Amino acid sequence: MQGKFITLEGGEGVGKSTQARRIKEELGRRGIEVVLVREPGGTPLAEEIRRLLKDYADDAPNARAELLLFLASRAQLVENVVKPALAAGKWVVCDRFSDSTIAYQGYGRGLDVDAIRRLDAFARGGLSPDLTLLFTVDAQEALRRRRGREIATATSADRFESAGDDFHARLERGFDAIAAAEPERVKRIDASGSPDDVWAKVAKEIFDLRFFDF
Amino acid sequence: MQGKFITLEGGEGVGKSTQARRIKEELGRRGIEVVLVREPGGTPLAEEIRRLLKDYADDAPNARAELLLFLASRAQLVENVVKPALAAGKWVVCDRFSDSTIAYQGYGRGLDVDAIRRLDAFARGGLSPDLTLLFTVDAQEALRRRRGREIATATSADRFESAGDDFHARLERGFDAIAAAEPERVKRIDASGSPDDVWAKVAKEIFDLRFFDF
Repeated sequence: MQGKFITLEGGEGVGKSTQARRIKEELGRRGIEVVLVREPGGTPLAEEIRRLLKDYADDAPNARAELLLFLASRAQLVENVVKPALAAGKWVVCDRFSDSTIAYQGYGRGLDVDAIRRLDAFARGGLSPDLTLLFTVDAQEALRRRRGREIATATSADRFESAGDDFHARLERGFDAIAAAEPERVKRIDASGSPDDVWAKVAKEIFDLRFFDF
Repeated sequence: MQGKFITLEGGEGVGKSTQARRIKEELGRRGIEVVLVREPGGTPLAEEIRRLLKDYADDAPNARAELLLFLASRAQLVENVVKPALAAGKWVVCDRFSDSTIAYQGYGRGLDVDAIRRLDAFARGGLSPDLTLLFTVDAQEALRRRRGREIATATSADRFESAGDDFHARLERGFDAIAAAEPERVKRIDASGSPDDVWAKVAKEIFDLRFFDF
């Protein structure tokens, strides 16, 4: 049986990767093999593209080049990793996917959202998430977490983390619009509590609300 | 005054880069500054993308990822290099551009040509060549030149040069279709003679046929 494809979305520092690992553990306990991936990245080529997107200072990609690099990474990940895994009955949990592209490159960078949707449809070759969990925290808390990450890793923030508070406010509006337009697929998760609190909400969406048949 | 944008197209080993240099020299003698670029490449980021496209063996891009990487390189080159040069009155000669994408990724790799045209229009942000020179040699001669390059550089051919003779036959059909559809923009150059013979034909197109006002 075809596996399920779950994507995790939201701004920086909302705890997506922690929750991704817990989803994998819990599904594993139920006998479901889970492939955990992140965007951009998830294949050797896509990780090289990630490096160009995140930390390439010599000649940072302009808005169109940035979008096309994200989509190239997605095309490689979807065809080479995600689709084969789903076909083999595994579930795939992906940290960021198309909704981040709409929010960051559309609402954030100001590229035309309809144009992005058409380009993205090509890149993902018809694959859509079965369920998307959108992690949100209020603006103050989001800012505090971004600053905290910067200090904790003792590195300067990457190009997205450092893009400014206006940019992050536009992102939030983008994610809000996506969630409002597709309430069946996109479930909001209030991520302002502890990792355990957030996990309780995630587990409820996936396991208690019977979104999927177990 | 806005400069002119000339693109050089054709299969592998047809002498495009040699002719590009001669165009630059001859225009220079007439007081026109020329920026010479190649695709994929032409900016530090785009040269990194070129490396991923040409020689990345660990996880070679699939057809969609390949197309999107070419377009990312183009978006960076057009906005950061070509448009500013043209706006400053310089001419730009580009070794490969959109027609190669149609021929290689469409006719060669079998992606939908209309989809490629839409994606490409986004990547080049409305810029079109003023003149395209399409260099052609017959199939036997093209094969001989590809093999000769391989021996001369003592390296194995890159992913495109080594893509097989069927692939190269499809390329030729693609370039033929492009030239037939846009005879005003695309001028065929028989590239089977010596570099001097070919240059005479190139110079005729650019200077004698008064394609441009000098």
